[in-house]
Amino acid sequence: MNRLMIRNIGQLLTLRGASGRPKTGSSLSDLGIIENGCVAIEGETIAAVGTEQEVWHRLCQRWGERLSDKADVMDAGGRVVMPGMVDPHTHLVFAGTREYELEMRLQGATYLEILQAGGGILATTRKTRQATEEELLRQASSRLDRFLQYGVTTVEAKSGYGLDWKHEWKQLRVARRLHETHPVDVVSTFMGAHVVPEEYRNDPDRYVDIVVDEMIPQVADKGLAEFCDVFCEKDVFSLEQSRRVLEAGKRHGLMPKIHADEMEAMGGAELAADLGAISADHLLRVSDRGICRLAETGVIAVLLPGTAFYLMAPFARARDMIEAGVAVALSTDCNPGSSPTMSMPMILNLACLHMRMTPAEAISAATINAAHAIGRGWQIGSLEEGKQADLVLLDAPHYAFLQYHFGINLIDTVIKKGRVVVKNGQLVRR
Amino acid sequence: MNRLMIRNIGQLLTLRGASGRPKTGSSLSDLGIIENGCVAIEGETIAAVGTEQEVWHRLCQRWGERLSDKADVMDAGGRVVMPGMVDPHTHLVFAGTREYELEMRLQGATYLEILQAGGGILATTRKTRQATEEELLRQASSRLDRFLQYGVTTVEAKSGYGLDWKHEWKQLRVARRLHETHPVDVVSTFMGAHVVPEEYRNDPDRYVDIVVDEMIPQVADKGLAEFCDVFCEKDVFSLEQSRRVLEAGKRHGLMPKIHADEMEAMGGAELAADLGAISADHLLRVSDRGICRLAETGVIAVLLPGTAFYLMAPFARARDMIEAGVAVALSTDCNPGSSPTMSMPMILNLACLHMRMTPAEAISAATINAAHAIGRGWQIGSLEEGKQADLVLLDAPHYAFLQYHFGINLIDTVIKKGRVVVKNGQLVRR
Ligand SMILES: [Zn+2]
Ligand SMILES: [Zn+2]
Repeated sequence: MNRLMIRNIGQLLTLRGASGRPKTGSSLSDLGIIENGCVAIEGETIAAVGTEQEVWHRLCQRWGERLSDKADVMDAGGRVVMPGMVDPHTHLVFAGTREYELEMRLQGATYLEILQAGGGILATTRKTRQATEEELLRQASSRLDRFLQYGVTTVEAKSGYGLDWKHEWKQLRVARRLHETHPVDVVSTFMGAHVVPEEYRNDPDRYVDIVVDEMIPQVADKGLAEFCDVFCEKDVFSLEQSRRVLEAGKRHGLMPKIHADEMEAMGGAELAADLGAISADHLLRVSDRGICRLAETGVIAVLLPGTAFYLMAPFARARDMIEAGVAVALSTDCNPGSSPTMSMPMILNLACLHMRMTPAEAISAATINAAHAIGRGWQIGSLEEGKQADLVLLDAPHYAFLQYHFGINLIDTVIKKGRVVVKNGQLVRR
Repeated sequence: MNRLMIRNIGQLLTLRGASGRPKTGSSLSDLGIIENGCVAIEGETIAAVGTEQEVWHRLCQRWGERLSDKADVMDAGGRVVMPGMVDPHTHLVFAGTREYELEMRLQGATYLEILQAGGGILATTRKTRQATEEELLRQASSRLDRFLQYGVTTVEAKSGYGLDWKHEWKQLRVARRLHETHPVDVVSTFMGAHVVPEEYRNDPDRYVDIVVDEMIPQVADKGLAEFCDVFCEKDVFSLEQSRRVLEAGKRHGLMPKIHADEMEAMGGAELAADLGAISADHLLRVSDRGICRLAETGVIAVLLPGTAFYLMAPFARARDMIEAGVAVALSTDCNPGSSPTMSMPMILNLACLHMRMTPAEAISAATINAAHAIGRGWQIGSLEEGKQADLVLLDAPHYAFLQYHFGINLIDTVIKKGRVVVKNGQLVRR
């Protein structure tokens, strides 16, 4: 079995002690740092974490004497090791790009004008429907390569560019195949209710019926997703329609997530609280009451500052949420229209400088809290004995450099399930 | 002699036609694009640019028949080739880092409190004075490696952390040695008047005397710099002191540059116009009149959105400047306190999304106009026959992807003076 010992770690960010529930308030700043730390890996799992002496002691018990014969040793050179980052909100599987929309927006084009020029979500739907499964797989796989290069070892991926059963199913199949073949773990969310497809423009309730009565049961039946999401927004899905979709998902064992209060304070956060959603995402315009309800009910706020940045919109009130006791996670929202990035380090930079999260808070939000936002807090997001060996070595002596050298990718090495998958910032060919 | 032909370029951004003077107004959007382009390089110089047929024809004249025997051929795979970027404003040579200041600022610390805690420019001065020349060289050289990896082939570098002759000279020597030894070209600016050193806190005019009467003549005498810069700002150097410094520089053949109107509208832009400075930099608070004067006199506005981002300050009014006919350039302002980044792609992202420059305008500003801002418009910043062969291959089919995939480094290959120095995003070992 693969045995690896990483020693001489200047700062080891364990994020320990929060596998049971996400970090809130001031505990968000607690990275569980071990100076001069050491991590031992056995197979796909973390065997020991601590100072070198502690790890040595622990391993003696497990592996017996003469450890150096029995494990590969990696010297971290006094640099930072932290958990592989988790991206809890992406629209990973789609075809085509929409780079031309930015210039239109810069020249003042409205969302409607972009739609009329053939852009918007429905443009991606057309291309995604047309694409073969293999083509979708190829495009999404190269996006996952980028995620990995930028330090992400697990992503959530939503359907929602198919908008009919045949093509939603295709997207979900691609996500599953990526999970099986790519080093990055992919966790699936069904989001048939992403937008009303052109075919049902005049009868959106009929489309909701199809999502609720036809798609959700099949997704559950085939075990294609763990979560069910909906775009709850003015002119997309109403609060009532959103409730129908998420309740149907719940009945079929899909945990609710929600795109909430992005462009208007619709009460999406409150709905998430009512339904016991695992997360409420976006929240740029969430009300004070919505924030309180999230805090009371333990719904995780997944914030997506890349989307605000790219759409030139105001940023979510991260500080108010943190102060109110909401558990905050961060994500790229990777998608072709409103956040075409695969860089979590960039998201951390934006979280810090535009939402005034501290470097430590941003790291908690991108690791352990992000893991909880996709129901994986028990398995990933921190470096603790028994958890999956997903970790990242930074080309920096202190975690604050992630924010300090903004715009620079400091990811040097990525280890996924105990195996080195990125080295010197480059993908290791499989 | 080294001969290289790059063919199958999906979009070749030549930026041609502006070697004589910078681009202004709508010409900033004109990237001189050749679809299915080709570039031929001979030695350190561009031998031909055009469609493949045109280049072929031109080369037949120069090189005779059987070209394929005589040149290496690189296939760009339908991707974008553009000029190597130019960074016209950096404080490249310094020792130490100040990553801890960000967390202090996020928690509300003022500039004065940071100074009192041992931070600020003077902290860097202490470390830079203490560092050996070799140590400074090593640190700055690794920064240049990052610049190169992010597509920059020429940087300007200012002194100004020595603040006495001995240490200013040391910084300038390091810049020269980097220019001679590192693939990136380094263009030097003397900036003894960066801040008043602790020793002269109570007699700043005396320090200005030293800069004017002692340092500038020696810099000129030893040929250590081409430009002279000053930090014209409330509580740093007054308008009158700044004028004295820049006029002294001019008398000794150093062209004026100025850190102007960053925190207050002091009239720095107007001073730049009066003196015929080559550039006025920062300009976050420049007055309308200042903008008009820059446009009238052809002083280039070097904008530094990374600094505004990192200091959480308002951004410069790029659109007003462009509309007024000012030539705009972009830069990282790379320095340890207010913009610790080496990523011009990040600067382009910020220019676009926070200053509403279009992707094309940002590219002009980071290439040909940046070259003019350091007096190199005739030599670099565009891809034209006879110019230096500094160019970049993007991992993208259209230049708009630089802005679209924000936070992602799309630089695949960098060629400096005809030689491949970055390949697959990685430095080629020298
Ligand atoms: Zn989304
Ligand atoms: Zn500066």
